[in-house]
Amino acid sequence: MFRLCKLCYSTAAQSIKSVKIKDVFKKGAINETKVGRVQGWVQSVRNHKRFCFIDISDGSLQTLQVVLPGNLMNKEIQNGASVSAVGKFVETEFNVNKIEMVCENIEVTGPCNPDEYPFLKHTPHEMQHLRSYPHLRMRRHSIMRGLRLRNQLEMRFHQYFQKHDFTHIHTPVITSSDCEGAGELFNVHSPNKMDSKDPNSNFFDKPAYLTVSGQMHLEACAMALGNVYTLNPAFRAEHGISRKHLSEFRMLEVEVAFVEDINYIMDLIEESIKYSIEEIELPVLQTFEDAFKDIPPNHSTAVENAKSKQYDRIPYSEALTILQNNSKRLKTPSPIWGDFNTEQESFLVKHCGMKPLFLVDFPKESKPFYMYANDDEKTVSAIDLIFPFCGELCGGSLREHRLEILQSSLHKLGLVDDYHWYLDLRRFGTVPHGGYGLGFDRLVHFLLGTRNIRDAVPFPRSPHSCPL
Amino acid sequence: MFRLCKLCYSTAAQSIKSVKIKDVFKKGAINETKVGRVQGWVQSVRNHKRFCFIDISDGSLQTLQVVLPGNLMNKEIQNGASVSAVGKFVETEFNVNKIEMVCENIEVTGPCNPDEYPFLKHTPHEMQHLRSYPHLRMRRHSIMRGLRLRNQLEMRFHQYFQKHDFTHIHTPVITSSDCEGAGELFNVHSPNKMDSKDPNSNFFDKPAYLTVSGQMHLEACAMALGNVYTLNPAFRAEHGISRKHLSEFRMLEVEVAFVEDINYIMDLIEESIKYSIEEIELPVLQTFEDAFKDIPPNHSTAVENAKSKQYDRIPYSEALTILQNNSKRLKTPSPIWGDFNTEQESFLVKHCGMKPLFLVDFPKESKPFYMYANDDEKTVSAIDLIFPFCGELCGGSLREHRLEILQSSLHKLGLVDDYHWYLDLRRFGTVPHGGYGLGFDRLVHFLLGTRNIRDAVPFPRSPHSCPL
Repeated sequence: MFRLCKLCYSTAAQSIKSVKIKDVFKKGAINETKVGRVQGWVQSVRNHKRFCFIDISDGSLQTLQVVLPGNLMNKEIQNGASVSAVGKFVETEFNVNKIEMVCENIEVTGPCNPDEYPFLKHTPHEMQHLRSYPHLRMRRHSIMRGLRLRNQLEMRFHQYFQKHDFTHIHTPVITSSDCEGAGELFNVHSPNKMDSKDPNSNFFDKPAYLTVSGQMHLEACAMALGNVYTLNPAFRAEHGISRKHLSEFRMLEVEVAFVEDINYIMDLIEESIKYSIEEIELPVLQTFEDAFKDIPPNHSTAVENAKSKQYDRIPYSEALTILQNNSKRLKTPSPIWGDFNTEQESFLVKHCGMKPLFLVDFPKESKPFYMYANDDEKTVSAIDLIFPFCGELCGGSLREHRLEILQSSLHKLGLVDDYHWYLDLRRFGTVPHGGYGLGFDRLVHFLLGTRNIRDAVPFPRSPHSCPL
Repeated sequence: MFRLCKLCYSTAAQSIKSVKIKDVFKKGAINETKVGRVQGWVQSVRNHKRFCFIDISDGSLQTLQVVLPGNLMNKEIQNGASVSAVGKFVETEFNVNKIEMVCENIEVTGPCNPDEYPFLKHTPHEMQHLRSYPHLRMRRHSIMRGLRLRNQLEMRFHQYFQKHDFTHIHTPVITSSDCEGAGELFNVHSPNKMDSKDPNSNFFDKPAYLTVSGQMHLEACAMALGNVYTLNPAFRAEHGISRKHLSEFRMLEVEVAFVEDINYIMDLIEESIKYSIEEIELPVLQTFEDAFKDIPPNHSTAVENAKSKQYDRIPYSEALTILQNNSKRLKTPSPIWGDFNTEQESFLVKHCGMKPLFLVDFPKESKPFYMYANDDEKTVSAIDLIFPFCGELCGGSLREHRLEILQSSLHKLGLVDDYHWYLDLRRFGTVPHGGYGLGFDRLVHFLLGTRNIRDAVPFPRSPHSCPL
């Protein structure tokens, strides 16, 4: 049996400590670490007569400027190459980060031929160009900042819900439950058994789909654990292409037991979003960066509003009146008693001051069967949360927990048999409860301010597009 | 516009504060909260002459014993019913938790007919019986404890990797990349376009599958961000039924850039597992509980070993010698130069003292093309981590980062075109790197000690079985 001690990893030549760039920029770090090794990818090369500046990125928020004396210059030190640089960290006034490395030794770990590499240094690319290189585009700052943001945002959501005694549930991706009608479902098949008409030939003995929502599975768990949530992939096989939709997306879904007031759900949404975005470090894009020109001028105000302003809550009926009173300023006709379209949602958000806006108590006919029927017999206790730029961010409701009313709705739809299990949740120890789903990618999209949601996601999937 | 203040939720009758059972049991809590409301589900009812004891669960680790005086008794207070109980919290010596509620008012929110409810109070059920009620079984302690454990374990993994500067990546579920051969892949189709022979009829214009691993997508991200991980669903369309396998499972996958020594990967695995399991609260099952008799006698020793003992690391070749020397004690013949089977893995773990065991440097032929070729030309720098009871928990390797060697392996397999993008990661700024995958459900399964992995997962999917 052998066991290497940790010290054995470093040979003499490699004995200089590796440091992360983010740690180099920490206050006071330069006094502790005077010499170090930085390993990463070259982001830019600026040649001068007797020396050269390179910027190295190792995935940290900032890049490190490294000063190479002429004798260390090397043709292989090109944009995109991976390097390992050893040197002194010194204070400087000629750099925004106030610290740079004076290089003593540099090794090219992996070269990068600039004639073959699809990205240019110092030149912004169209986001569409980056999308043609889905395996390389995360090396660009414009994409990398989105990946880091997703990570931060996810961790803040977990922190919030853990602090409030929610249990994270791994709801299933493959499901036999056709939650909201068959049109938008992806089918799942085992390779050699493609004939879905014969149920016995199916891997699961019945048709199986990719989930469109984990809500009902969460409801089952909420009836045992009280407060539950999931941050799981969800899928829609919609054929239309839009800059706000993806075929595969992440949804934060939350269910809470013993809730009787929809305002509790709205408080929870507002508080958890504000908690999750308040500390987000979002570097401002520079003019030479890819996505710079895509970002709308009032983007930062809208983000600031989402962080600190109170979100308005208006009844659906009031929103309808606003739209009807402003019908001349809208291209699409106001609905009489049904859902709003993108233009109408966007108008309402602007009307209310470019802040997130809750719409409450929707017409019964426009919402699915599982929503709690209000006493007026016309509306259900449902909410939509509309965000500037990205539209509907959340949808939620109190759930119909009264067995007889749910049974009668399902009976009218001819679905009693399919939802026998769902009725059981009301048959055995039912409690008033409610929940919501939040489009995680949409929130990232909103915070980044990029034009297309596909640039807010590491590996976007949409109709006709599933690279890698 | 209307806005309800938070105080408006509670009407006069409901003005007594709701508390979580876990908070009632916190040290000193009883001095602060003398009267409170507990909302949850009845887990047991014990009738006496003048009063009755009920246990309420609200998803907290413990249940609360509530003493009902005779006048509050009610036929609807049955096992499985949901209740809202108001009363005084008092100290008691007749209960393990030392605190109980003397009830002043109880309301049945949702009744539960004991003749229809499939679970009995005070009586252990077979786990298979529980599996027939996938929407209700999480109400049993035996399943609920697993869901709580999953949540804790996931959060600890996140904490560990966040503390060490890893970025969590949402690798895609739908992929066009057939990572390890086609046999075990699920196909994904859009509903009205079932004919996979015509690529134009496919939703994504080419065949799409459910991912078997996010490794290659993570590698692409590691080449930009350095350290990355994912805790994502993965899928295998294997037709065999086993108590250790699932068709849909969670995998923790990790990739690290600038790593040249496989020992670094083993350190990372061992340290992150120990960090994640060290504080796990795992209540001991009582004799009257469902899964009690399934748990093997040496289970707690094995868990203790995984928490605190050093994991052994032995070369594959040494493991082979151990097996050959003990061939008489094994039913299956020792391999000459290939992978080990379950019996052999289990023998090796016992031989090394029922501790987790790393096997290192596997025969090249038994491992996939992307693993780093050792200088001996016979082995690759690959590891397996074998755990007692659950078998292989992790598989990992250094990745082949040398363009020419990877190109030549892919050429031999006729796969150069399919993996052009993967070769690009080596073509542009390649770095030595490595990573691994850990079966999250297997680790939960190991910690719970249940016989079947399906009882460690909220909604298990396996051949012929995809309820809900």
